[in-house]
Amino acid sequence: MALIVQKYGGTSVGSTDLIMNVANRIKTYYDQGHDLVVVVSAMGDSTDRLIEMARRIMNNPPPREMDMLMSSGEQVSVALLAMALSRLGVKARSFTGGQVRIMTDDAHMEARIESIDAGVVRQALQERYVCIVAGFQGVDARGNITTLGRGGSDTSAVAMAAALSADECEIFTDVDGVYTTDPNKVPGARKVSRISYDEMLELARLGAGVLHSRSVEFASKYGIVLHVRSSFNNLPGTLVVREEDVMEKALVRGVSLKTDEARIAVKDIPDRPGLAANLFGRLARSRVNVDMIVQSSGKENRNTIAFTVPEKDLLLTRQVADEFFKEIQSGSLEVDERIAIVSAVGVGMKSHSGVAADMFGALAAENINIEMISTSEIKISVVVHIEQGKKALEAVHRAFGLERPA
Amino acid sequence: MALIVQKYGGTSVGSTDLIMNVANRIKTYYDQGHDLVVVVSAMGDSTDRLIEMARRIMNNPPPREMDMLMSSGEQVSVALLAMALSRLGVKARSFTGGQVRIMTDDAHMEARIESIDAGVVRQALQERYVCIVAGFQGVDARGNITTLGRGGSDTSAVAMAAALSADECEIFTDVDGVYTTDPNKVPGARKVSRISYDEMLELARLGAGVLHSRSVEFASKYGIVLHVRSSFNNLPGTLVVREEDVMEKALVRGVSLKTDEARIAVKDIPDRPGLAANLFGRLARSRVNVDMIVQSSGKENRNTIAFTVPEKDLLLTRQVADEFFKEIQSGSLEVDERIAIVSAVGVGMKSHSGVAADMFGALAAENINIEMISTSEIKISVVVHIEQGKKALEAVHRAFGLERPA
Repeated sequence: MALIVQKYGGTSVGSTDLIMNVANRIKTYYDQGHDLVVVVSAMGDSTDRLIEMARRIMNNPPPREMDMLMSSGEQVSVALLAMALSRLGVKARSFTGGQVRIMTDDAHMEARIESIDAGVVRQALQERYVCIVAGFQGVDARGNITTLGRGGSDTSAVAMAAALSADECEIFTDVDGVYTTDPNKVPGARKVSRISYDEMLELARLGAGVLHSRSVEFASKYGIVLHVRSSFNNLPGTLVVREEDVMEKALVRGVSLKTDEARIAVKDIPDRPGLAANLFGRLARSRVNVDMIVQSSGKENRNTIAFTVPEKDLLLTRQVADEFFKEIQSGSLEVDERIAIVSAVGVGMKSHSGVAADMFGALAAENINIEMISTSEIKISVVVHIEQGKKALEAVHRAFGLERPA
Repeated sequence: MALIVQKYGGTSVGSTDLIMNVANRIKTYYDQGHDLVVVVSAMGDSTDRLIEMARRIMNNPPPREMDMLMSSGEQVSVALLAMALSRLGVKARSFTGGQVRIMTDDAHMEARIESIDAGVVRQALQERYVCIVAGFQGVDARGNITTLGRGGSDTSAVAMAAALSADECEIFTDVDGVYTTDPNKVPGARKVSRISYDEMLELARLGAGVLHSRSVEFASKYGIVLHVRSSFNNLPGTLVVREEDVMEKALVRGVSLKTDEARIAVKDIPDRPGLAANLFGRLARSRVNVDMIVQSSGKENRNTIAFTVPEKDLLLTRQVADEFFKEIQSGSLEVDERIAIVSAVGVGMKSHSGVAADMFGALAAENINIEMISTSEIKISVVVHIEQGKKALEAVHRAFGLERPA
């Protein structure tokens, strides 16, 4: 008899039929005698519907009110799932984030979980209830409803698992697990059976999408093993585990392609200490999400700093740069939106210096020009022209032998 | 500068445009310097939509889960209204029932308010926020979300007004106020400028629909003056006040017609003390809502007890009666669904004995047969054949001079 936390995403509970489907799956576990805590996202497109209503009223609604609005979505799905279990004769009780004391800071729309008081849930489990908990939401110290930002339900699930010292944490979604790359872009993509927290984190940050990066941080911090798998079949998915528990040592675990970033070059700024700190400090305060950063000195002690930002932050970036140029009385901006970022991630590259060379070689063999390079301990990212992005992804995927065995 | 509680019903906030309309109305009050607490129902048909989803999952969902589901509706409307006010530059903050500590008993789906801790709202008012409070919902002592039953938002508003010792309580709805009878049934129906709590209560119980009867009880208990008016125009509506504050003393304030009741005759039961108590005790425990009761003794010491129940409770009533007959080993049931109940309500009839006679006379003049009569201090109800209901309503309305002056 184990204590199992399960999380079902929006597509898994997108209709009342799908909710019945999830309830049947839960019943199977329940009938085996397990204790179950089930974290649920809002139904399918309901979040989009709520956002659309808000947008009809105003463009930038107060974040506190957005959280009040958005959190209603999970309230619907947890109630319906509890009903579905009742119909199957399984005792179930739904809870909002506030009811199970998921306490967060007060950063509305991107709040961070600070603590969970698992008492209510433990009590209900003892009475043999399946506990259905609204994902994505919490309350701050003053009782305001907060939400955790995109994909926050994953984090809710992992935090519940940590608070309850759960034996397992299963993340049910609409894909079979974590793939070596997006199967929609590279048909040869292969499902990975195990992946380390650090690798998963890099892939999540690169937009691999299956997991919310904060949930992976949380899982890593508390040593929670995540099982990412499909709610539409019974296949085993991908286990996200400690590095030492990854059996199959691969140089590169996965590769990713990102096309919604823009490359910014800040040119003609004096080669003077503190200027880069000034610029990136401003960007951080404006919450622009800077990814790769590369600096090169140019002629006559003038510097160029290049970096990438999400396209949606471009306007804000321009404003920040203009203020910066005004202060230092020099500088100009070059923006290129026609870029793709291709990354290779793997803990194996820590101890193997040839990975970068292999990757650049694979791209050269395909005549793909590299515009920017950035590396970390377990990741290598390159910027290429957007039209070569997919070809670059395929080349790197192949170079590291990630295809499905034919 | 007054402290004003306003309540807007579902039709008044049925779309984002209507919500902007309500926000504009609130802004007018706010700009005059008033403190405002606004209680809001769920948007238009959203409650029906939630019920339909639940019904697709199961027929009798656990009431606790229905409350979790239903309460999400007001969470949407309060958030959107707070946004609409923000757009107009008015500081506003939305609250769930739980956040303003609307404490209820644990009778899910028909909970009663036990207390309100007005501290949070007072604090926000002091900071010049308009407080938008979710109607219809509260929490029980263990933190479960509860709802107050049909029309419960009226009660939320009156309870807030009582807890805050508000100067005014305005109930905005989709009609201009309380009418002498349903204007859709009798074109000559006239808007009443003032009505006493007791009269309003009788009319509410008779299904006059404008106000939830529990809200009227609450208002009466705490002496809250209610102003029932339309959110679609600026006309004054109807004031619900203490009897001594009703200026215009009318014998009959309003008349009503109810066609969704059935008449039950329980026949052939021994004329023995305690049998009626036994029967109506059983009905009460089964929550059958008995309205009129008439007893007459028949031949050979056998009694007939006739009463009316809502048509929707007919099945339950038959079951209860069958058990009763089994226990006393006699009795039979006669059911007539083809009835209408016409009632006249007015505090004036307390001191004027001729009202019943006038009413019966008016019906006789129209050749309408009375099947059952029941009177209370301020109400006379008669049962007539359903096909004569409307004609009876018109006759009584005319008999007491309630038509609009031509």
